[in-house]
Amino acid sequence: MTAIGKTRWAIAEGYIPSGSTGDSRALTSHETACLLNAGDRAAKVSIRVFFADREPAGPYAVTVPARRTLHLRFNELRDPEPIPVDTDFASLIESDVPIVVQHTRLDSRQAELALLSTIAFGE
Amino acid sequence: MTAIGKTRWAIAEGYIPSGSTGDSRALTSHETACLLNAGDRAAKVSIRVFFADREPAGPYAVTVPARRTLHLRFNELRDPEPIPVDTDFASLIESDVPIVVQHTRLDSRQAELALLSTIAFGE
Amino acid sequence: MTAIGKTRWAIAEGYIPSGSTGDSRALTSHETACLLNAGDRAAKVSIRVFFADREPAGPYAVTVPARRTLHLRFNELRDPEPIPVDTDFASLIESDVPIVVQHTRLDSRQAELALLSTIAFGE
Amino acid sequence: MTAIGKTRWAIAEGYIPSGSTGDSRALTSHETACLLNAGDRAAKVSIRVFFADREPAGPYAVTVPARRTLHLRFNELRDPEPIPVDTDFASLIESDVPIVVQHTRLDSRQAELALLSTIAFGE
Repeated sequence: MTAIGKTRWAIAEGYIPSGSTGDSRALTSHETACLLNAGDRAAKVSIRVFFADREPAGPYAVTVPARRTLHLRFNELRDPEPIPVDTDFASLIESDVPIVVQHTRLDSRQAELALLSTIAFGE
Repeated sequence: MTAIGKTRWAIAEGYIPSGSTGDSRALTSHETACLLNAGDRAAKVSIRVFFADREPAGPYAVTVPARRTLHLRFNELRDPEPIPVDTDFASLIESDVPIVVQHTRLDSRQAELALLSTIAFGE
Repeated sequence: MTAIGKTRWAIAEGYIPSGSTGDSRALTSHETACLLNAGDRAAKVSIRVFFADREPAGPYAVTVPARRTLHLRFNELRDPEPIPVDTDFASLIESDVPIVVQHTRLDSRQAELALLSTIAFGE
Repeated sequence: MTAIGKTRWAIAEGYIPSGSTGDSRALTSHETACLLNAGDRAAKVSIRVFFADREPAGPYAVTVPARRTLHLRFNELRDPEPIPVDTDFASLIESDVPIVVQHTRLDSRQAELALLSTIAFGE
């Protein structure tokens, strides 16, 4: 299948609420980068996370196999360090082959959930 | 009317919740690809759906007539197979003429609905 | 001021819920095209609305003065015809000078509001 | 680190609700421009705010240091003037080095919050 996308992507918004009313993984507050690798070669992806008042964290290394999607939750990143909660951040996502990146948040701090999503900025 | 758009689009996010509190089609949880064909030729559209851990599903074939819009619900796709619920997916949408694709979700798992929308990635 | 934007924009999603729990204009369900004309010449804007099963409506004519923004509610369009409620639609927005178009919906059918927004597709 | 982004961005939507049910800064209704400067030079950013019926406000000057993100709340801008609440606006964001801009709103006028987000229009 022919690849689609770009190799450098940025998400300027990021925030992991510390609280959550959901009692399952599906309804726990989360901040996600959805990665699509529609091509026939595995994508080696490197993520750097930016903050307001300190040097960037990372790189975090993930692989998206050929013809697969990975919905990556920022709050599950551990190596080299977890992303702090209740803290503004942004992210830069670089891949060795074209991918597509979309940013989604599910916020369940209150009784009812709220959602946002946008295609990231690619170049 | 002059066509507008691209012929290859990707939506990296996709998720059909299995639950819903809405009691009508309008308020049932759904994941939608809104397709606009503003041009004067019918668009033959092919959709492939990507997962985290298996080969892609599809292609699903749909037609958008000239000067029409089709708001396609992923949970209504049946041929060659339905999209599983509660499962992360992504989609690649290809057309033989330029179209515009926008991704929208209405989530009514809880008492109050939540919405997200973004223009897809086109190239 | 230097203009920014494109002259042809498309919004593939559109839906005006017939119901609303809000008791003010601010909290009434609405579907909006936010138009920004940052340049020094007035923008003459023409809008066509597309449906699933009939020919497009319009054109609707609006003007955005130089250095102004217009947050246009589709449910307030009247000439040549109102947009039907509870009906899927899409829109094509053409301007004689560069503008920027963003699509926003506030849905207050239920007790709590839901929001979506995305930059439109411009070319 | 290599910069990413554009130097001119527009957000056509803007609205600061006057009410809020949140009792903390995190849950107070807010309209945000998230700015990412992934490069190695500080970004000098100039913001102009557009209205429906008066000349633009600003410029507002902010700096985003190298390798930092700034999540700027429009309701905290004060110089040269605060942005009025309950008023439609739009914004033009110009930087001397490439940055990425994403628009996010948290609306907590009602008991449950609502969210929207989109990458801004860059050129």
